Amino acid sequence: MTGTPLRISRDRLLDRLAALSAIGGIEGTTGSARLALTDEDKLGRDLVVSWMHDLGLTVTTDTIGNTIGIRAGSEDLPVVLTGSHIDTVRTGGRYDGNLGVLAGLEVIETLAAAEVVTKHPIGVGFFTNEEGARFAPDMMGSLVYAGGLSVEEAHDTIGIDGASVGAELDRIGYLGSSPCPGLAPHAFVELHIEQGPVLEEAGIQIGVVEGVQGISWSEILITGQSNHAGTTPMRLRHDPGYAAARIATFVRELVDDIGYPQVGTVGALNLSPNLINVVAASAIMTVDLRNTNEAVLQGAEARFHEFCDALAESEGVTIERRTLARFEPVQFDERLIGLVEQSAMAAGLSTQRLPSGAGHDAQMMARICPTGMIFTPSENGLSHNPAEHTDAADLEAGTNVLLDVMVSLATGEIV
Amino acid sequence: MTGTPLRISRDRLLDRLAALSAIGGIEGTTGSARLALTDEDKLGRDLVVSWMHDLGLTVTTDTIGNTIGIRAGSEDLPVVLTGSHIDTVRTGGRYDGNLGVLAGLEVIETLAAAEVVTKHPIGVGFFTNEEGARFAPDMMGSLVYAGGLSVEEAHDTIGIDGASVGAELDRIGYLGSSPCPGLAPHAFVELHIEQGPVLEEAGIQIGVVEGVQGISWSEILITGQSNHAGTTPMRLRHDPGYAAARIATFVRELVDDIGYPQVGTVGALNLSPNLINVVAASAIMTVDLRNTNEAVLQGAEARFHEFCDALAESEGVTIERRTLARFEPVQFDERLIGLVEQSAMAAGLSTQRLPSGAGHDAQMMARICPTGMIFTPSENGLSHNPAEHTDAADLEAGTNVLLDVMVSLATGEIV
Repeated sequence: MTGTPLRISRDRLLDRLAALSAIGGIEGTTGSARLALTDEDKLGRDLVVSWMHDLGLTVTTDTIGNTIGIRAGSEDLPVVLTGSHIDTVRTGGRYDGNLGVLAGLEVIETLAAAEVVTKHPIGVGFFTNEEGARFAPDMMGSLVYAGGLSVEEAHDTIGIDGASVGAELDRIGYLGSSPCPGLAPHAFVELHIEQGPVLEEAGIQIGVVEGVQGISWSEILITGQSNHAGTTPMRLRHDPGYAAARIATFVRELVDDIGYPQVGTVGALNLSPNLINVVAASAIMTVDLRNTNEAVLQGAEARFHEFCDALAESEGVTIERRTLARFEPVQFDERLIGLVEQSAMAAGLSTQRLPSGAGHDAQMMARICPTGMIFTPSENGLSHNPAEHTDAADLEAGTNVLLDVMVSLATGEIV
Repeated sequence: MTGTPLRISRDRLLDRLAALSAIGGIEGTTGSARLALTDEDKLGRDLVVSWMHDLGLTVTTDTIGNTIGIRAGSEDLPVVLTGSHIDTVRTGGRYDGNLGVLAGLEVIETLAAAEVVTKHPIGVGFFTNEEGARFAPDMMGSLVYAGGLSVEEAHDTIGIDGASVGAELDRIGYLGSSPCPGLAPHAFVELHIEQGPVLEEAGIQIGVVEGVQGISWSEILITGQSNHAGTTPMRLRHDPGYAAARIATFVRELVDDIGYPQVGTVGALNLSPNLINVVAASAIMTVDLRNTNEAVLQGAEARFHEFCDALAESEGVTIERRTLARFEPVQFDERLIGLVEQSAMAAGLSTQRLPSGAGHDAQMMARICPTGMIFTPSENGLSHNPAEHTDAADLEAGTNVLLDVMVSLATGEIV
């Protein structure tokens, strides 16, 4: 079931990564800026589609702009699909998303060169607007593909520059006709960089992704009484600055108490009027809580809410909470998790099971078909940064695992 | 020694306060905007000087623009001086500073109307740029008067709009010729609104000011490691946002532990990049610590520094401290404190001894002569706000105490 003798071409993979990153390239770096549905995104899409055509794939674009190239199998069966995205944040790196798409091309080119015909068709695609840096929500293309958002609603989405998704798709020539939601693949596997420090720190080559953390994002608005920092005795204060700080330290205490893999972050905090000698009138802050277990995440939220209520009472401030985003954890398919692990081990690669802390298209595809993910290490855990880097040996190893997993899936013997 | 039968005129005082606040008046409020050495400040000065002339005072302006009107005494002795400032912050109230100057005029007019001649001359003045809202440092005029800053350095000070103190003094006609540092008065007494909630909360009419809190202002720069809020396990974080919050909660713990009158405030805090899903790369915050006792304040600083060092170690961040301002506490003259207290009590007014949490010209004058201060209550503790308010009865009571104290001092029997 594992252990294909085929091996992908590291140089061809690196060449394609370099060529794609040159479009919207950020001077002096290996990174790119290709915000979704901009001219740069169009040029990146055109390049990848030209490679799909070079490989003789059947290329279709759907009504949200997701574009898939398919190599026929020996039987008329659902496709074994891989892919990711090629849009980037404004300070994007070379590998985030792009690796998953170009590794898929590499898998197909390797099969074609060896004249291997699989039982299931094999496909590679790129989903529209995974990053959400121009249009919210992120993972839009895969969400629409999986039926989680209507095409109409997606088209009507207005971006940070006032343009709409529908108009921009049309403008750049990627308003396709294939229907959305799309056909459920036989299976979906995505190769992605980790975007975190876990694999590098542990010296592991292949991350076996068990699922995607659930996310709870809140905005907290604290209103108190602005006062002179010198003339107001402590007992008469109702200080939103103190309350905000206490909430941030509580988030750390809560997360430490729950333990791994719970994480919690206060990344944004603004005081008003934000002056050295004035007790703040108000504070606004964000709280990001994530866990792979929905019940544990709900427990964390409940304890957090309780704490805020008690703090509002003791400090004499008002604390309002607003949910900015809430996603339940996603659990990947157990058979696919095992297949990724066994493929990597058969190739002599070190592995570690871990959750994904970031969102990925695979979590949307998991709604409609057996889905798995493969992670490669990220140097210093960096991503969304032009300095994002993964060693060539790791890129190659990850792509070979993808190849092996897809061949296994496409023979139809495993899933 | 106390209990003059003379009483000031409430209506005349209120009329002068209203007339002065109309210059630079903020529409729809009783407040004013007369930043130091602007056209509005010049018009305010001109009005007060015209009142000084109306009272037959000898008016002098010194080289930093401090302007003093003096009523002669029966003997050639040092002046018993009162006064304050008439510059305001951009959102100034009607009473901050103005009360002390116009109450001084009222004291002199009351003496003149009763044809009382004091042994010592009696004077009232306004000091240049007490607020520091246009030019730093604040309390500039009184600081130069007391010899704490050279006239040249003060003149060269550039304001927030690029203008210099010297050029602006010249432009508005208040670059005087009286020498600075100035002559040491026999005594200095300043009437001011409390700018805090203590008197109102306690239902007290007259605050007997014992001194001015020492101030320790620090800027804290924390540098850590920016990371993805989802993909970075807690044990690998070096989070400046958490460290900043922990410092802010420590300030509260420290202040609570030391107890009254220690105060501590984190009024300004900025995270970078300040995004919901990114562990901050750096944080910059301010810490404001104040106490009336220099040794206790130094102890608070030492414990704060120790805490920062330990936190830097445990969180794996760097914490740099920079002193933005440091003033030792000022202790007013014991005899003057007693005199204010006895005058108020003799008039049947309730009193409370308290420190000033804000800076005042009196703290500079305390360097060169016996000095005291009288506080009147501030509604809701508000100041630096057009809604600043003190009841007319309290304004009148405070001015009568000032009258009584000055008469006592000017007889020469007390000090």
